Amino acid sequence: MSDPTAAIIIIGDEILSGRTLDTNTNYIAKKLSENGIDLKEARVIPDDHEQIVITVNALRSKYTYIFTTGGIGPTHDDITSQAIADAFGVPLELNSEAFEIIKNFYLSQGKELNSARKKMAYLPKASALINNPVSWAPGFRIDNVFVLAGVPNIMQAMFNHLLPSLQKGRILQSKNIDILIGESTIAAEFADLQSRYPSVQMGSYPFKRDDRHGTSLVLSSKDAAKLAEAYSELETFIKQNYEHSIIA
Amino acid sequence: MSDPTAAIIIIGDEILSGRTLDTNTNYIAKKLSENGIDLKEARVIPDDHEQIVITVNALRSKYTYIFTTGGIGPTHDDITSQAIADAFGVPLELNSEAFEIIKNFYLSQGKELNSARKKMAYLPKASALINNPVSWAPGFRIDNVFVLAGVPNIMQAMFNHLLPSLQKGRILQSKNIDILIGESTIAAEFADLQSRYPSVQMGSYPFKRDDRHGTSLVLSSKDAAKLAEAYSELETFIKQNYEHSIIA
Repeated sequence: MSDPTAAIIIIGDEILSGRTLDTNTNYIAKKLSENGIDLKEARVIPDDHEQIVITVNALRSKYTYIFTTGGIGPTHDDITSQAIADAFGVPLELNSEAFEIIKNFYLSQGKELNSARKKMAYLPKASALINNPVSWAPGFRIDNVFVLAGVPNIMQAMFNHLLPSLQKGRILQSKNIDILIGESTIAAEFADLQSRYPSVQMGSYPFKRDDRHGTSLVLSSKDAAKLAEAYSELETFIKQNYEHSIIA
Repeated sequence: MSDPTAAIIIIGDEILSGRTLDTNTNYIAKKLSENGIDLKEARVIPDDHEQIVITVNALRSKYTYIFTTGGIGPTHDDITSQAIADAFGVPLELNSEAFEIIKNFYLSQGKELNSARKKMAYLPKASALINNPVSWAPGFRIDNVFVLAGVPNIMQAMFNHLLPSLQKGRILQSKNIDILIGESTIAAEFADLQSRYPSVQMGSYPFKRDDRHGTSLVLSSKDAAKLAEAYSELETFIKQNYEHSIIA
């Protein structure tokens, strides 16, 4: 059985303008990795109805899970819920459960339920709510698409709420050796190791730390035995040839 | 005449696994904004030959410029150059100019030109080099696709080198008012303002600073006069109704 797959759709003009650095992709990516769900791609798109519809429909049939972030708030520029409804060809309707949650939250704060707040209770038909313990207006799930807030702490709370409902896969385990030599120096041996361990993904990442240049050699696999074997070979080779360059 | 458009393709398993936070999109996005080039989308894809070919070909006909980052180093997992050549249907060939630069750099360091280092001089036929003042192995341009390194400081140096060659557009100017009230409180008035200024994009972004919740109301337009007019109306409204809540 193959492992579940996923894609992320970050919806937000503020990311594309450079005003905001997207950290939602990284947060979700880490959580998916920890749970054996293979993130296959991530896209950042504008707050544009047609673009949301096209992107959601292009990806939802390709992957087990789709996560969107952004555009489910109370203001006019929050258009994600309508676009998701249109992507699925279902109406946006008042969700009574969401309405109760939102109404009670604002009433408890002594605020009226104005039309902007009520707007957040309109969800695509047959959506299931995703709890929002931070600011209460819920996210939602329709089929395999999870629609989350864009504000990082709210998105994170929603994601952790939905995480137990996801199918888990075999976890991609990683081990790395960091060395103070350039990657081109050991590229041939590293490629040779890769060719002998096709089930282990091997990546080489240059870095600069404390003004010293080095390379992080990263081995990843869902096969723990093969990973250990390949890592042991790499470690032996590095120790024999470049012991002085290893960063503990 | 319409303004130039762009898309970014971030190539890297390390982003999708969550191991690395992508900051290249944000850097390029800011620079494009400052130069009136409209960034329409950004995609993160794995180090996968077919996926690179498909993505580059899907986007390069849609936008004025495409920027890719990642996968042009000396190791076996660096497959971007070959994939770009295949996307364009041209051979990868030894670029003599790149070869001289790379050879001279390694010789000056007293290092041999091994096959991994020489690999970085193989570029798609008819590419133009993009200077790399950091680690010398160049990026390249083919048609409207700019192929850059993934390491942020190298990518940035390459980007700043190529920037003068890009066609510039009218700059999207922005003004914002930050207030310590929730966005749902003024959503109706904000939507009304938007409806009267269709050429000004209006976005509302909740934030939390020093434990205080607030909203950043952002107005953006390529029409400076309309932007000033809309901003003045918004400022007047906020001052009249929520003066105490404005963050200086």
